[in-house]
Amino acid sequence: MFNNQTPSAMPTHKYRPYKDTFAVDLPDRTWPSKTITVAPRWCAVDLRDGNQALIDPMNPERKRIMFDLLVRMGYKEIEIGFPSASQTDFDFVRSLIDENAIPDDVTIQVLTQARETLIARTYEAIAGAKQAIVHLYNSTSTLQRDVVFRSSKQGIIDLALEGARLCRQYEKTIPETVVYYEYSPESYTGTELDFALDITNQVIEVFEPTAERKVIVNLPSTVEMSTPNVYADSIEWMSRRLAHRENVILSLHPHNDRGTAVAAAELGYLAGADRIEGCLFGNGERTGNVDLVALGINLFTQGIDPQIDFSDLDAVRRTAEYCTQLKVHERSPWAGDLVYTAFSGSHQDAIKKGFEAMEADAAAQGVDVDSLVWAVPYLPIDPKDLGRSYEAVIRVNSQSGKGGVAYLLKNDHKLDLPRRLQIEFSGVVQAKTDAEGGEVTSEQIWSVFQDEYLPAPAERADERWGRFELTRTSTSSDLSGETSLSVALRVSDEHRDIVGHGNGPIAAFLDVLAQEGVEVRVFDYVEHALSAGGDALAAAYVECQVEGVTYWGVGIDADISTASLKAVVSAVNRAIRVTGRDRELASV
Amino acid sequence: MFNNQTPSAMPTHKYRPYKDTFAVDLPDRTWPSKTITVAPRWCAVDLRDGNQALIDPMNPERKRIMFDLLVRMGYKEIEIGFPSASQTDFDFVRSLIDENAIPDDVTIQVLTQARETLIARTYEAIAGAKQAIVHLYNSTSTLQRDVVFRSSKQGIIDLALEGARLCRQYEKTIPETVVYYEYSPESYTGTELDFALDITNQVIEVFEPTAERKVIVNLPSTVEMSTPNVYADSIEWMSRRLAHRENVILSLHPHNDRGTAVAAAELGYLAGADRIEGCLFGNGERTGNVDLVALGINLFTQGIDPQIDFSDLDAVRRTAEYCTQLKVHERSPWAGDLVYTAFSGSHQDAIKKGFEAMEADAAAQGVDVDSLVWAVPYLPIDPKDLGRSYEAVIRVNSQSGKGGVAYLLKNDHKLDLPRRLQIEFSGVVQAKTDAEGGEVTSEQIWSVFQDEYLPAPAERADERWGRFELTRTSTSSDLSGETSLSVALRVSDEHRDIVGHGNGPIAAFLDVLAQEGVEVRVFDYVEHALSAGGDALAAAYVECQVEGVTYWGVGIDADISTASLKAVVSAVNRAIRVTGRDRELASV
Repeated sequence: MFNNQTPSAMPTHKYRPYKDTFAVDLPDRTWPSKTITVAPRWCAVDLRDGNQALIDPMNPERKRIMFDLLVRMGYKEIEIGFPSASQTDFDFVRSLIDENAIPDDVTIQVLTQARETLIARTYEAIAGAKQAIVHLYNSTSTLQRDVVFRSSKQGIIDLALEGARLCRQYEKTIPETVVYYEYSPESYTGTELDFALDITNQVIEVFEPTAERKVIVNLPSTVEMSTPNVYADSIEWMSRRLAHRENVILSLHPHNDRGTAVAAAELGYLAGADRIEGCLFGNGERTGNVDLVALGINLFTQGIDPQIDFSDLDAVRRTAEYCTQLKVHERSPWAGDLVYTAFSGSHQDAIKKGFEAMEADAAAQGVDVDSLVWAVPYLPIDPKDLGRSYEAVIRVNSQSGKGGVAYLLKNDHKLDLPRRLQIEFSGVVQAKTDAEGGEVTSEQIWSVFQDEYLPAPAERADERWGRFELTRTSTSSDLSGETSLSVALRVSDEHRDIVGHGNGPIAAFLDVLAQEGVEVRVFDYVEHALSAGGDALAAAYVECQVEGVTYWGVGIDADISTASLKAVVSAVNRAIRVTGRDRELASV
Repeated sequence: MFNNQTPSAMPTHKYRPYKDTFAVDLPDRTWPSKTITVAPRWCAVDLRDGNQALIDPMNPERKRIMFDLLVRMGYKEIEIGFPSASQTDFDFVRSLIDENAIPDDVTIQVLTQARETLIARTYEAIAGAKQAIVHLYNSTSTLQRDVVFRSSKQGIIDLALEGARLCRQYEKTIPETVVYYEYSPESYTGTELDFALDITNQVIEVFEPTAERKVIVNLPSTVEMSTPNVYADSIEWMSRRLAHRENVILSLHPHNDRGTAVAAAELGYLAGADRIEGCLFGNGERTGNVDLVALGINLFTQGIDPQIDFSDLDAVRRTAEYCTQLKVHERSPWAGDLVYTAFSGSHQDAIKKGFEAMEADAAAQGVDVDSLVWAVPYLPIDPKDLGRSYEAVIRVNSQSGKGGVAYLLKNDHKLDLPRRLQIEFSGVVQAKTDAEGGEVTSEQIWSVFQDEYLPAPAERADERWGRFELTRTSTSSDLSGETSLSVALRVSDEHRDIVGHGNGPIAAFLDVLAQEGVEVRVFDYVEHALSAGGDALAAAYVECQVEGVTYWGVGIDADISTASLKAVVSAVNRAIRVTGRDRELASV
């Protein structure tokens, strides 16, 4: 069986193997025989490295939401900015301190370059904090020395030492704050190891680490340049040689250029590191920082407490998506929309048998199923532990081989459902077809969709679907940012005129519903014009939490604003239908 | 410096460390000291494992486009389906064979379970192919044995051997096809290693491997359950013990549950594997299969020919996105929209100096810059080698700290720009501000945007922007799938009435432009209603290739169909403006 692969025309002459330039010789490495048994110290850098990689950097409101999220999840060391480089960052650091927003057991961290004006400004920023980590960095790679700084090794060392000494001086200007230090030889993965060791050990001496006041040495893969075992070798090599190792906290900061940042962090941790810096869902420069969610939940699947709360991962994701304005990918580890979804019949069958076997075991032992060790094929974790649920998604194949619920709705009805609504609706279709049996046609799918999300207002009261129906709306705005919404609403058999207020029509409508005793929160909102030529119909999709449970609603109208209100009504009516009749349906 | 992390309430009692159940003892492992020097054999499983994980599985047209793409890129072994499990897959395999679509040096691969009816059907599917790999699998994990098959180890072995023997029998029914074999102990990562070895070696004996007809042994991490070094250890352990090792091709098939599939593939390859199965951009069940694009380009950055053509990665991505109906994430390794984008001033400065130093070196040596070894900070690869370009994106900060070009356009003008258009426009803004200096306000951004994409039709000829202007449109369709479009078009100073045809208004308009001598291809199309209350305006964004260069165009109109045509006009006029005046602008 021959290998028929042939050379490509890719210009390989432009690149050199990493080991030719940055060899690490460590034949007696010990990390491959080790296993992880306890969570590392985490440092979340979403507000600095993550934020600096966004097209729309977070505004103060979004920054604060991210900070509060990280605190709530359990992160105790949070890099919150580069205050000397940006007025926005400076103001944000000050606002956290001045508003007493930092819990006593949380330590903020701020980045600075090794220049006096920047260092002075950094201490100005953190004055008044109970404690803070000043994170000093300078670039040490061969390439940056040659091209950017045009400096000798000694020049780079002098820069770092001068910066460290200035830090010690300015520290005295804020005696009420306990200052800790972190030093990063930036672009470490492009630096000769012996030079990285030399400069780091000299900086450590300036910071005079003690058991009570350890120094953090952060060895970033600023650019990921090799397979992760090489990074791990370099970490073990450094760990054995760092000065005052017992009083040094060895930190990793992997980037994901090669797609192996999670592995680099895990292997580097095995190799002797104590601490990992990263971002939620792998946000960050270029391909991102290492994904703190993947790292934390990976530990959890081994029975190791990540010391971080991932029990409502959807809420974490929604908040992060709001703050970063970037979507988490469908296949993002542990968090993506599709990661607990089984499409294949054989997978669905095995998963079903796994659930059944666990139930049977629990019954036989007379214990709750949640006290057993998790064991379901194709599901490495109980989605419930993260606030998620397992989704068995039906395949709908027509004879032409064109298939898929979402495809048919888009192709035949111009409806472009958001991904999570696609999954929800596939479950609805499956529940119907399991009940009715047989194959599913495009017409049946449309009928199920209309029945579920878009019931036509019926003339006869007994045919009416849902408790609420919107019969008229008008909005007015005084341009102050508040919208008044006046609606005529059928509530069961009664017609009412109600006025609500909010910062937009949807918010005002939530106010209307609250007056009717229904609490609704909107998580996601998507709209589009129906691309069928000529007509101006628009579709709106909203993901709502109604009385604590999440539902999608759909609205179609010539007026996009009305469509969005109809979508909210759709979600609310669905929720009430489920609560009233058949709670089971909600857990499909 | 204390570690303030505290236990979470996550139910760790439900999970056990991997090593407690599936220990691999390999103290004399050799893989950590090795480096990769040559590309593995690749097998692309996009049409099988990738396809079975899609909400909308590919229809025959999309399958064929994916197959042709994989062939064009250089993949020589392509798993094209599970023909005995699906009529669609069966028909697709037949169509490739019957239409002579498989090049002589490409080997198709088909999956089958070890059951006679399925095996018979599999050979029916591949009859007439020059050669094919029959990929036999059965599940071997402790969990699947206990819960799904309720079978002893011997029962599982018997199933595999019976399947292998049946394959050998049915092979005789298609003597004109050279049949190769692949065996997968599925759920290998949940299988005791000695049992995985035992069953695999017995299957190998049935297949009687020779030097000319080697057998592929595929060891999948069906579910990724441990750090990637443990998978690598298991591969080295197996590789040392496989029967007829010299005539066995050891294959990896990593899934990405823990986010370490790329690392698992690379370390497993170091550990002795010969071959890697994966999907473009990491599509596949749950978190996906290992990403073939990351693996291939990772080799390239080490000066190793991947033997796959990634030189037009955007085209590969567009095609994959069309086939899978899933977007590649902004931070996907080597391919995402943001991976060659620098936002930070210090990064932009270092990158600029890197480019300048390379230019200077090339000039000093009197050689072309492309003959030098690539060396630019923060850019581990020359984006040009993948058909991409480096993007330095400006930050626009207003006093409130709300920032970002995209944010301002959305907030102030309800325009929700697609990600790549955001990046393109940020470059336009930067070019303007570099030229004019000073800070940028929201009003200036809007003015730049209008000037660039949305010039108002001017009364006076000398103020008119662009060669084309749409002044009237009408469409008609005979419901046969063809649209006729009649437009009144200003072309420079002339008014013309032109009719075009296509499968929709945009296609018909491209026909109109072709008649005017302008070749346009549309890559991406996005539209939305403007959410400003009441009015029904819609925005359309198109990414076009005009005379070989890519431009975005924008159109706004009450009629979404007209908006889309205006967007094409916008792109074409921009292209002509650049060609005519200042080609430099296009490379911003």
